[in-house]
Amino acid sequence: MSLFSYAAPLDEMRFVIERVLKAPAQWAAIPAFTDLDADTAAEVLAQAARFTSEVLQPLNGPGDRQGCRIVDGRVKTPDGFPGAWQQFVEGGWPALACDPDWGGQGLPQLLNAALFEMLVAANHGWTMYPGLLHGAYETIKAHGSDALKQRYLPKLVSGEWLAAMGLTEPQAGSDLGLVRTKAEPRGDGSVAVTGGKIFISGGDHDLTDNIVHLVLCRLQDPSNPAPPGTKGLSLALVPTVLPDGTRNTMAADGLEHKMGIHGSATCVMRYEGATGWLVGEPHRGLPAMFLMMNAARLHVALQGLGHLDMATQNAERYAAERVQFKGPIARQPAMQRTLGRLRAVSDGLRVVMYRAAMRLDEAEHHPDAAVREAAAAEASILTPVLKAFGTQQGFQGASDALQVWGGYGYVAEYGIEQTVRDARIAMIYEGTNEIQAIDLVQRKLLGGAAPAFERLLDGLLAGADDGEAGRALRAQATMARETLAAVRSAAGGDAEAPLRAADDVLAGVGHLLLAWAWTAILQAAPDDAARHLVVHAGLLHSAPEAEMHWRRAQRALAQAPATA
Amino acid sequence: MSLFSYAAPLDEMRFVIERVLKAPAQWAAIPAFTDLDADTAAEVLAQAARFTSEVLQPLNGPGDRQGCRIVDGRVKTPDGFPGAWQQFVEGGWPALACDPDWGGQGLPQLLNAALFEMLVAANHGWTMYPGLLHGAYETIKAHGSDALKQRYLPKLVSGEWLAAMGLTEPQAGSDLGLVRTKAEPRGDGSVAVTGGKIFISGGDHDLTDNIVHLVLCRLQDPSNPAPPGTKGLSLALVPTVLPDGTRNTMAADGLEHKMGIHGSATCVMRYEGATGWLVGEPHRGLPAMFLMMNAARLHVALQGLGHLDMATQNAERYAAERVQFKGPIARQPAMQRTLGRLRAVSDGLRVVMYRAAMRLDEAEHHPDAAVREAAAAEASILTPVLKAFGTQQGFQGASDALQVWGGYGYVAEYGIEQTVRDARIAMIYEGTNEIQAIDLVQRKLLGGAAPAFERLLDGLLAGADDGEAGRALRAQATMARETLAAVRSAAGGDAEAPLRAADDVLAGVGHLLLAWAWTAILQAAPDDAARHLVVHAGLLHSAPEAEMHWRRAQRALAQAPATA
Repeated sequence: MSLFSYAAPLDEMRFVIERVLKAPAQWAAIPAFTDLDADTAAEVLAQAARFTSEVLQPLNGPGDRQGCRIVDGRVKTPDGFPGAWQQFVEGGWPALACDPDWGGQGLPQLLNAALFEMLVAANHGWTMYPGLLHGAYETIKAHGSDALKQRYLPKLVSGEWLAAMGLTEPQAGSDLGLVRTKAEPRGDGSVAVTGGKIFISGGDHDLTDNIVHLVLCRLQDPSNPAPPGTKGLSLALVPTVLPDGTRNTMAADGLEHKMGIHGSATCVMRYEGATGWLVGEPHRGLPAMFLMMNAARLHVALQGLGHLDMATQNAERYAAERVQFKGPIARQPAMQRTLGRLRAVSDGLRVVMYRAAMRLDEAEHHPDAAVREAAAAEASILTPVLKAFGTQQGFQGASDALQVWGGYGYVAEYGIEQTVRDARIAMIYEGTNEIQAIDLVQRKLLGGAAPAFERLLDGLLAGADDGEAGRALRAQATMARETLAAVRSAAGGDAEAPLRAADDVLAGVGHLLLAWAWTAILQAAPDDAARHLVVHAGLLHSAPEAEMHWRRAQRALAQAPATA
Repeated sequence: MSLFSYAAPLDEMRFVIERVLKAPAQWAAIPAFTDLDADTAAEVLAQAARFTSEVLQPLNGPGDRQGCRIVDGRVKTPDGFPGAWQQFVEGGWPALACDPDWGGQGLPQLLNAALFEMLVAANHGWTMYPGLLHGAYETIKAHGSDALKQRYLPKLVSGEWLAAMGLTEPQAGSDLGLVRTKAEPRGDGSVAVTGGKIFISGGDHDLTDNIVHLVLCRLQDPSNPAPPGTKGLSLALVPTVLPDGTRNTMAADGLEHKMGIHGSATCVMRYEGATGWLVGEPHRGLPAMFLMMNAARLHVALQGLGHLDMATQNAERYAAERVQFKGPIARQPAMQRTLGRLRAVSDGLRVVMYRAAMRLDEAEHHPDAAVREAAAAEASILTPVLKAFGTQQGFQGASDALQVWGGYGYVAEYGIEQTVRDARIAMIYEGTNEIQAIDLVQRKLLGGAAPAFERLLDGLLAGADDGEAGRALRAQATMARETLAAVRSAAGGDAEAPLRAADDVLAGVGHLLLAWAWTAILQAAPDDAARHLVVHAGLLHSAPEAEMHWRRAQRALAQAPATA
């Protein structure tokens, strides 16, 4: 019986990029991408697929079992991880979506999204290291001084150095206003950073010689005192190795023992007067970090997709091979339903996530300001939905897939239990899924993004045909509009009402996006009987679930709990 | 910040036993239990609570980290596990629900159910060892020869020896008809058992000197050849130590590395002409094992409840202590909903599971044959529902609870991630949850148990008042009846139709039982405002979910997928 393996779904990716989303037409309209064509993009993804299948996936199980450890005061990653990083760097992959001015390849975020789907599917633990690179790059590029940019961007783009983000402290989880790490100006333009951070992914490791920390801190400047809360946070760049080659006064005090992603070094960091430099204005640290949030959240969403696809393709193969009751278990109705739903959700989520990546590309590169603005607005709605809904589907889908293996699914060597453990973290970090729901409903749908959501709905409905998926999409759009009207109305008299409905609203929008994706998939391949079956299996589950979420959201609004 | 702990919910257990289910009235009507009163029962549970909190729970995290290993060819359990077993034996706990004729205490299964809820909540890995004892005891008691009973029952009842069940083989998972292990008659009444078994919980360990294996095998008797498939399976008792004190020719070849329950020794067993004796008639091994199946499945269901209650009580405490955004996170609407739902489902499942245990007591001990028969019929419906629905709620609830801790939930030292990992196995073993759904729908609701289900529904509805829970119960009963009529009608022309709907039917019945339990809870405590709030939170989730399942079941019947 074959064990876990991974083959990137290159045909499906190409189908989504070229035929469902018609990305090459977008590239032709954006000067930065006019040199790119479908075949070139496909060749880039094919190369990435080889790397993920041949180099990364074989390190996934061993990396989980070996984990990271501290040797002589430094973090040592699992065997093979540094070597895989060298191959990644030599392939030019860190530079894929970076600006050519800084040594990047200037390719669309769409291709970077496909790359990260593959990386995570093959090895989530390893992918945590490059996962932080792009966010650091974007932040320094947008807010760093010229000196910082010159010193750090080329090395980050090439992958010679890696990055870490220092946000969380023991008392400051979702509530970053409680951050206490301090930065004292030294008078030479640098600051001395002192404090402790937890959950710092890649805070120390042996993949690169230098690690660039972006640390959220509170500036101690008597001439410019920090306001309390999040409005008084600054962002400091603190490298583990200083420009003169000496080690900075910072260290990983320990590693967390986690449920999964054992290959990722989750550090407890201590900064003891470590030398750093502010990135952006004093007290404007949080807005500087928000800039990269859409891209970072989309990357976490892609983790959900990667896990789901990995679990699905292995479950499909196992179910075809495993014989019980005189036939492969894939023929049993319960297995057919599970496998059909997993495949449908995986294929559907890919369409929506790649669409979001295309909006990020337009927001950054489109020549028309109105297009840029509309794309940014749509991305700001899609990203919290995809982060929360995508990671929830990734975890639940991995657990559903585990059931296909029966008892073997619970045994480590078969691989799927690791996927379940690894997938669980994505529901928590980069803003918990509950925080995403509040962001979507409170800040976006009840805030400035309400018209953008209406435009998004109109756009999705424009393609709704009379097929099963199109009918589901129209029904769900109606429920969405009714529910959002009720949320708005309830919010007037009861500020907490939207918060009670937020999780269900987000899930409802997630199912609605799936219904659209399935419509778009079938329209791009109207004669593909196998796809019709898969979409049918997906709708069998998704449509009643969508209804349930909208109904529950309305109940949660209407029935405020009496205070106990 | 306090870490995981466990305090058995004694007040709630007493409330359910005495006021909701009125068990003391049942005891008074059953001669075997007339000596038992409410205070005595409460004292028994209070003693069990002390053992689980003080002895078992402190071994839970360390047992997970240390796991089992093979030392000098024998399985060594985590430090403290054998000592805890000695204390359990000295307390007389293995004998709790066993027949006084064999040294048991003759207490109801209801109290044994409460005991096992506590044991699993405190330490699932450890509880796997006594978890198999009662099934072996029942099987030998009902089907063993007098000699086997005399030799093995007293030592099993006292806990001097433990038991293991050998069913699964690599090629024979859910499909036991594929079992190949053979038993050759020796002419002296014994058989020589040869073959390999996998996933044998407690197959070897250091808690007791002897382990009594009940092994499913195929008798090789030329004068009485075994029919193929499950009708040709026999059951053999194969002890690790023979009556003359020598070791039997059997060994644990290895231990599985699992997602969770690391403290439980999951063995790969090899029997090499090992000496055994048939239990029951040749080729009647499976019916002999089915006898104990209701009790065994209820025990697995109780694992779901134990995990759920453990997760809930720790999440409640953490949410009350953890301050973010100027208050304990327990005040945030998203957390309130999660915590309320967890508490509601935990409290509700306990009522239904204890009710099932009372039916098992009646089925075994009631003086009136009609009552015995009706109780057995109800138990045969409740157990697959509670096994599948209860363990699904246990796993999902543990994962939902993990979210309350945010990033800390993913870190091993906080405990909740272990609960998620441990809880996952209960959806697989003792018949996967998909097998339970097929058993419920195919064998029971479409089979001989249809009238019993109608009687069960009538009985549940008899108590439905006009409160929120009572209204939900009535609505769900109507949906259940309509759906089951549709299942019956579809089954005529399409044999696979019930299998497509089975998972949703089972989940629907699970929610219906919850609605009844909440009705019964509120009727037993009509003025308890806190309980009304909890039930409200439960219904907010459960009622729309129930509707979704019934609707989806009907869709699955109506829309047979076209063959691809």
